Amino acid sequence: MLASSDYTRSKRSSQFNYSIGTGRLGLALQEEYMNHLREVQTRIGFQYIRGHGLFHDDIGIYQEVETEGRTEVFYNFTYIDRIFDSFLAIGLKPFLELGFMPEKLKSSEETVFYWKGNITPPKTPKKWAQLVEATLVHFIERYGFDEVVTWPIEVWNEPNLTNFWKDADQAAYFELYKLTAMTVKAIDARLQVGGPAICGGSDHWVDDFLTFCKKENVPVDFFSRHAYTSKPPVKTADYYYQALEPPKDMLDQFTSVRKQIDAQGFKHLPFYITEFNTSYSPINPVHDTLVNASYLASILVNASDSVDGFSYWTFSDVFEEAGIPKSLFHGGFGMLALHGIKKPTYHLYEFFSQLGDSELYRDDSLYLTERIDGTLVALAWNYSDEKGDVDERLIEFALANQSKAVFVQKERLTESDGNPWRTWQQLGRPRFPSQDQIERIKKTMMPKVETMQLAPGSVSVTHKLAKNEVCLITCLPVDDETSSYRDLDDSKITSY
Amino acid sequence: MLASSDYTRSKRSSQFNYSIGTGRLGLALQEEYMNHLREVQTRIGFQYIRGHGLFHDDIGIYQEVETEGRTEVFYNFTYIDRIFDSFLAIGLKPFLELGFMPEKLKSSEETVFYWKGNITPPKTPKKWAQLVEATLVHFIERYGFDEVVTWPIEVWNEPNLTNFWKDADQAAYFELYKLTAMTVKAIDARLQVGGPAICGGSDHWVDDFLTFCKKENVPVDFFSRHAYTSKPPVKTADYYYQALEPPKDMLDQFTSVRKQIDAQGFKHLPFYITEFNTSYSPINPVHDTLVNASYLASILVNASDSVDGFSYWTFSDVFEEAGIPKSLFHGGFGMLALHGIKKPTYHLYEFFSQLGDSELYRDDSLYLTERIDGTLVALAWNYSDEKGDVDERLIEFALANQSKAVFVQKERLTESDGNPWRTWQQLGRPRFPSQDQIERIKKTMMPKVETMQLAPGSVSVTHKLAKNEVCLITCLPVDDETSSYRDLDDSKITSY
Amino acid sequence: MLASSDYTRSKRSSQFNYSIGTGRLGLALQEEYMNHLREVQTRIGFQYIRGHGLFHDDIGIYQEVETEGRTEVFYNFTYIDRIFDSFLAIGLKPFLELGFMPEKLKSSEETVFYWKGNITPPKTPKKWAQLVEATLVHFIERYGFDEVVTWPIEVWNEPNLTNFWKDADQAAYFELYKLTAMTVKAIDARLQVGGPAICGGSDHWVDDFLTFCKKENVPVDFFSRHAYTSKPPVKTADYYYQALEPPKDMLDQFTSVRKQIDAQGFKHLPFYITEFNTSYSPINPVHDTLVNASYLASILVNASDSVDGFSYWTFSDVFEEAGIPKSLFHGGFGMLALHGIKKPTYHLYEFFSQLGDSELYRDDSLYLTERIDGTLVALAWNYSDEKGDVDERLIEFALANQSKAVFVQKERLTESDGNPWRTWQQLGRPRFPSQDQIERIKKTMMPKVETMQLAPGSVSVTHKLAKNEVCLITCLPVDDETSSYRDLDDSKITSY
Amino acid sequence: MLASSDYTRSKRSSQFNYSIGTGRLGLALQEEYMNHLREVQTRIGFQYIRGHGLFHDDIGIYQEVETEGRTEVFYNFTYIDRIFDSFLAIGLKPFLELGFMPEKLKSSEETVFYWKGNITPPKTPKKWAQLVEATLVHFIERYGFDEVVTWPIEVWNEPNLTNFWKDADQAAYFELYKLTAMTVKAIDARLQVGGPAICGGSDHWVDDFLTFCKKENVPVDFFSRHAYTSKPPVKTADYYYQALEPPKDMLDQFTSVRKQIDAQGFKHLPFYITEFNTSYSPINPVHDTLVNASYLASILVNASDSVDGFSYWTFSDVFEEAGIPKSLFHGGFGMLALHGIKKPTYHLYEFFSQLGDSELYRDDSLYLTERIDGTLVALAWNYSDEKGDVDERLIEFALANQSKAVFVQKERLTESDGNPWRTWQQLGRPRFPSQDQIERIKKTMMPKVETMQLAPGSVSVTHKLAKNEVCLITCLPVDDETSSYRDLDDSKITSY
Repeated sequence: MLASSDYTRSKRSSQFNYSIGTGRLGLALQEEYMNHLREVQTRIGFQYIRGHGLFHDDIGIYQEVETEGRTEVFYNFTYIDRIFDSFLAIGLKPFLELGFMPEKLKSSEETVFYWKGNITPPKTPKKWAQLVEATLVHFIERYGFDEVVTWPIEVWNEPNLTNFWKDADQAAYFELYKLTAMTVKAIDARLQVGGPAICGGSDHWVDDFLTFCKKENVPVDFFSRHAYTSKPPVKTADYYYQALEPPKDMLDQFTSVRKQIDAQGFKHLPFYITEFNTSYSPINPVHDTLVNASYLASILVNASDSVDGFSYWTFSDVFEEAGIPKSLFHGGFGMLALHGIKKPTYHLYEFFSQLGDSELYRDDSLYLTERIDGTLVALAWNYSDEKGDVDERLIEFALANQSKAVFVQKERLTESDGNPWRTWQQLGRPRFPSQDQIERIKKTMMPKVETMQLAPGSVSVTHKLAKNEVCLITCLPVDDETSSYRDLDDSKITSY
Repeated sequence: MLASSDYTRSKRSSQFNYSIGTGRLGLALQEEYMNHLREVQTRIGFQYIRGHGLFHDDIGIYQEVETEGRTEVFYNFTYIDRIFDSFLAIGLKPFLELGFMPEKLKSSEETVFYWKGNITPPKTPKKWAQLVEATLVHFIERYGFDEVVTWPIEVWNEPNLTNFWKDADQAAYFELYKLTAMTVKAIDARLQVGGPAICGGSDHWVDDFLTFCKKENVPVDFFSRHAYTSKPPVKTADYYYQALEPPKDMLDQFTSVRKQIDAQGFKHLPFYITEFNTSYSPINPVHDTLVNASYLASILVNASDSVDGFSYWTFSDVFEEAGIPKSLFHGGFGMLALHGIKKPTYHLYEFFSQLGDSELYRDDSLYLTERIDGTLVALAWNYSDEKGDVDERLIEFALANQSKAVFVQKERLTESDGNPWRTWQQLGRPRFPSQDQIERIKKTMMPKVETMQLAPGSVSVTHKLAKNEVCLITCLPVDDETSSYRDLDDSKITSY
Repeated sequence: MLASSDYTRSKRSSQFNYSIGTGRLGLALQEEYMNHLREVQTRIGFQYIRGHGLFHDDIGIYQEVETEGRTEVFYNFTYIDRIFDSFLAIGLKPFLELGFMPEKLKSSEETVFYWKGNITPPKTPKKWAQLVEATLVHFIERYGFDEVVTWPIEVWNEPNLTNFWKDADQAAYFELYKLTAMTVKAIDARLQVGGPAICGGSDHWVDDFLTFCKKENVPVDFFSRHAYTSKPPVKTADYYYQALEPPKDMLDQFTSVRKQIDAQGFKHLPFYITEFNTSYSPINPVHDTLVNASYLASILVNASDSVDGFSYWTFSDVFEEAGIPKSLFHGGFGMLALHGIKKPTYHLYEFFSQLGDSELYRDDSLYLTERIDGTLVALAWNYSDEKGDVDERLIEFALANQSKAVFVQKERLTESDGNPWRTWQQLGRPRFPSQDQIERIKKTMMPKVETMQLAPGSVSVTHKLAKNEVCLITCLPVDDETSSYRDLDDSKITSY
Repeated sequence: MLASSDYTRSKRSSQFNYSIGTGRLGLALQEEYMNHLREVQTRIGFQYIRGHGLFHDDIGIYQEVETEGRTEVFYNFTYIDRIFDSFLAIGLKPFLELGFMPEKLKSSEETVFYWKGNITPPKTPKKWAQLVEATLVHFIERYGFDEVVTWPIEVWNEPNLTNFWKDADQAAYFELYKLTAMTVKAIDARLQVGGPAICGGSDHWVDDFLTFCKKENVPVDFFSRHAYTSKPPVKTADYYYQALEPPKDMLDQFTSVRKQIDAQGFKHLPFYITEFNTSYSPINPVHDTLVNASYLASILVNASDSVDGFSYWTFSDVFEEAGIPKSLFHGGFGMLALHGIKKPTYHLYEFFSQLGDSELYRDDSLYLTERIDGTLVALAWNYSDEKGDVDERLIEFALANQSKAVFVQKERLTESDGNPWRTWQQLGRPRFPSQDQIERIKKTMMPKVETMQLAPGSVSVTHKLAKNEVCLITCLPVDDETSSYRDLDDSKITSY
């Protein structure tokens, strides 16, 4: 058993809710998207939201219009204003990702995703710079400089991949970065610009990018990278199936990149993981399952030493990168499935939002925290990638010398609780569920809650974790008022 | 095991939601009261609402004002309009109970309840009749005759008790009834008037009242009576403790009264139970417990043959008959405790609202119904008034020759699920709980939901009921779409 | 002055709110769209909603997927279910318009609108028929046959125009209509199918279409046509400017088409105007102005003899046919501008929803109606297409022998009241207005309300209509309670 | 004309929204009350709320219960917690007024108001002190010390009147004050206690009270007084009618009391007007009229030099001091009449909330302020207590050297605009208005809004104020985007 002498109090860092990822920003015009975002924001609460497509043509900022045979540029802010108004109204700030290329500025035809984001460099770099400038100046006029200066500005997305940047041409990206960063700083030197938003597997870009910035004297205010942990996929008609690397693998990547940054002389540069998840595929069923939550518990608990902010990819299955969802559950990234159904990973985040301000202890299946009022809040999980049954994992920890009784509340995610994916399977995997089916699924989407009261004294809490269970355990000192009820005797109630 | 050959299909009667009881109508001005009522109405849905105090001075319809030394009557409908507007806006009609006596019309000082409803006959019967007339005429003007003609008008409350009617003077009540009924019918003969709203234990009033009506040619459109099942109380400083008669006792009373009514030649007179519950005391902890729900399951399932409409007393602990609630849980009648916390009896009613339109089978622990779409919905309960542990009760019933798989959903109320009273005890019975405590209690107020899929074929459902468990079991034929997913193979998901 | 002897009571027909037009259905996923629709539905209330794009790829019903080298068709109802769920939840039924052509079924490349609706016949007619069948069968499964049988099914949109149907090929349309109608009726003969949804200017199609149906024995359950009244445009970079034909011109078209239908032997065929407005251009500023409302007043009052249902094109400026709106006001069709700002035409419709059930009188600037409770409700308007000032138009009508005083309420739309377009001009025509500007504009979007009390007796109401004013005048008999206030003397109040 | 050289910029003080008065706190349990309060708080925004009845028996904090023949005190916080929870949830802090006397602590029978607040000293001072202590300690436990320390604690209400304090016994009040203040400070010396909450007409109490505090070394953290301006009433059956002293009279009282406080050596003591209005009677029709707003405009503009915070008595006609309201309009204090109808005084406050942070100029009918963004906001009013017509009052002020055009928006309250009382009269003064009548009245409750654009240059604004008109004039520099619309030509629109 873990004794209280094993605890070391330190301030808990809380990068888990730094930012939340979203499908392309144009989807934020949708009602279901906003309903999901309000739910997530109310119960969890993020600082930033980051997604692709700021300059995509469905938002349509960049327009060219013909006047008397002359082409004029027109910047249309109708939709982006509506979107950012709605984010700010619920306390979310944009984490700006500049991209992809507007149709009229593209240099060639390559696109990414079902929704065809153009991934090529600007045909006319000057027009790109003017677009960036006009857009930022508009935001400053509309929302005020004091607001916009708090929005990180990230240049492009995963330029190290040919899917996202034509030929993954590093020199071309550095050129774009330099032009963009200079344009941003010309507006106001206090605006924060960064990159290179690379995905894992090309970490020589860390050195390359920072070397470039130093050499060319290009401003950089933060370093961003993505992280997914899935092995090569088995692709079927409807799904990607992938095994996962162990959590340690992803944690090691964070440490390693942080060291690279430091070694380049950028010790004070914030390091943001602007996308992460288990699999990078929006049609991998793992996202709908319990194992997704138990895997990510390890990451979020243990990565805080090297990472300054996470952005989980993504809050909602209102998402179209692989096309319009073909079914209620379809392997989407969302914390929330369609119809606002909460997946286990949603609850993992909600559990994190309940943790205390101090950290007492952590290992690979337990995280003990304490609130200012003395409430102990523990997160326990039992990640396993084995097939079939595994042994329950016993956790046990002490509450030192309690003079009061303790109310213990366990919120449990298991295969049978807080797992709407399983209920959907039992209902025959309805692609387009009826209202009745949706309600039945929702009745099973919440964690199972178990409560008890432990007598005063040197109290310990025990819990057996099922395979991949994620459990939040809250231990609350009880101010017992029972004695204030005169002549109380429950045994006089029928059947008690 | 119950075989499908044991089923006999008949139309299910649904008197359970005929009406809902409420503390005095003046409380309907309150926001928490209305929040509770909207919740109940949204999830369960009643036709009528009935409570005391229409003529009490907190609503203040009857006023006397002095003008130049002369006393004039003034009818003030400011509050009752606000109240009835708010009821009708959520689809609830008033079941009018005429009483108690306004201060200015009382003939002596006797009152009932903390809120001091005056229980005496009118000092000036003519002024009472004018008050009744003015009030009904006002309702007709405001809401239309077509609406008001659907509101039953009940004369007084429990005149057979000295608490509620001075000296329980039967002759005086009959006089009041006659005057009132005549006044009502003089407005329009189609308005529905009835009584005598007696409680149990004085059923000679049935014959007396109907004989009186026949003899005196007094109109009567319905007969109303109350029913509580508790034995004499042990009174302590804060609570009443009472044992309960067996459910059969209450059911027999219904049958017996119905027979009395019929025997008097009133076979077509509707018979309403305008109040019922286990205990008649608003400070009996039984109302907060699971046993209250399991007891009433028997009543609501089996009383439908003799009763035309029930009015559960009451929907909410926003209630003041024994004073302002001294604690979150205090033995109040409410389906909903303060802060909108759902008690087991709330869920019992919500379960009833999910039942099908056809009845297939019933006994003393099982009620099988079927919806038009073929869904079988079973209510099972295991009432026991024994102290300590009792054996689980096994129920088992067939679903005949299913060609499809069956989705089974169990919604269980047990000591540890859907029982916020127990969580409150574990938290040390906080009288005035904090927001944090309220949220923790609410996390445990919902039934435990268990789901499974049964393979096609001759399917049977089995369930073991814990002591006093109430369980709703829904059996839904599954339209399985699994085969429409190409190359589906869950075993390719990590850990599955 | 109009005397009451001039009135002839008849039942008022109310085709004005038969249906409401909308931009393409895919926009219904958006939150601002739904907010506008809820506003319109709450205050006006339509039966149906009709728009383009049911089969457009943004909703994406028709999909082809590759499985092991074989192409399979997959129907994706994720988005259309969400859309129709949201319509039905607010009491709106779909008026189905079948079109345009899914990308994978197109026979060539021609498209219409910024959003590129493909206007070509199906490459494989059988696959079109299967798409229609699968879609309708899905709707029946989801919403029930009793619901879907009330949805008119219209085949395509404006096939008489080359913009909307390749080459405006009549034979090809008739072929599509026949195939579609036969497919619909094969599902259930009670489903209602119709067409040809032509616009004005090609009324030989009326005879051609009905002759075709008779000759080929093709089912037709209703006839649909559109109506716009604008003359050829002056096109500028941002706008279309057009003069309007007189209202009589449009009214004559309705009569004429009705006669054609009748002459073809289809006297009982309902005749729906499934689109109408002044101008057919979504960038014509007339839609933002007062004159749009005064023009349409004439149409809606006087067309009821020949038309069975109107569908105003459209309820909202959330609309993309000419691209993303470039400015708050931009000449869009919407009753509501962006940000929910109410234009004069919105109020015209809201006025219509207040009219009485009986018609008493109508001419070209006055429409007198009466409610069941005796309230007289008059709509008055003063349409003028002249530039510059015009004389006020005096209207005057009698209220016969009022025994009571009359409360008169005038709701006036003039250049300075209920005209947010003018305020926006005064604010400098901000393209992307700030919250502060939006609020200031909204403060001026409501009609000016003037009230007075007329003494009992033979009362007449007088009103001077400003140029293009639209005014609703409500005349309410007063039940005067003033005498019930004892010693009332307003002159004792300071300054009165 | 007022030239810009006449302006002197200073920081505007904003005591107008320091606090808002309310009927007894027990009414805060009501839904209509809370709806009104949310409206007021959303559109105006107050810091504190102050009302009577914290210790009244409808909230019922002080209870005595019998246990085995012994009387025990029980403090019941069920209702006050609900009330304060609901205030704090909308950003309102309690301004605690300690009173009146609980039934069980009263020393004799005297009461005030329809709701019978007992006005006598405590029978047992120690029990009073214990009640105060228990209540404050409970608030600190529930809401935290940091919160409660910001709540002023005022001892009793108007002890200088026999209506409110038995015999207006000054010595008895000082004794109560001392006991209470000592009790408060014994909990924590940082808690703020004050008094004596006197009404006008007894200002010798200022010296008496402060002298007492000094002499007896009794803590006092603020001085509170009330102010009403009405002359002796003409009382009729339903109303009080009263003439008003000129505004200067009330303003002089403030200055005079401030001087008294300073002269006693309490220069740094905050001086709060914890109640004020024109008339002190809740049945004086003046409160429903325009003159109430124009009178108070003078007070709120000009009193800021001597007063540190105002509490307008009261925000809502949900109020029972003179009984249940007998009619929609009845002379109640409320900014909002029943059904949420906005009176002119509501708008006056809403106008104040729009004023700028800097003051430029003030006189007896004009108040010029400027916002940080350069918007000039003027409040103009034309108070007159004369009967009959008075001349319009011309106001005219300069906007210095505007390089831009100016958008001017006037929000006008006149006899015919923003005056629902008049509409109600025209409707026959319905006591219990129907929904239809309420909606018609609401259509006339908003100010008339007039807008215009003034060309750039040295701009001046002119306005003619009708009798008792209150007008807010906002002057906004225009960023004109008109030239960005290509080929714009409104004259091409039909009829323009």
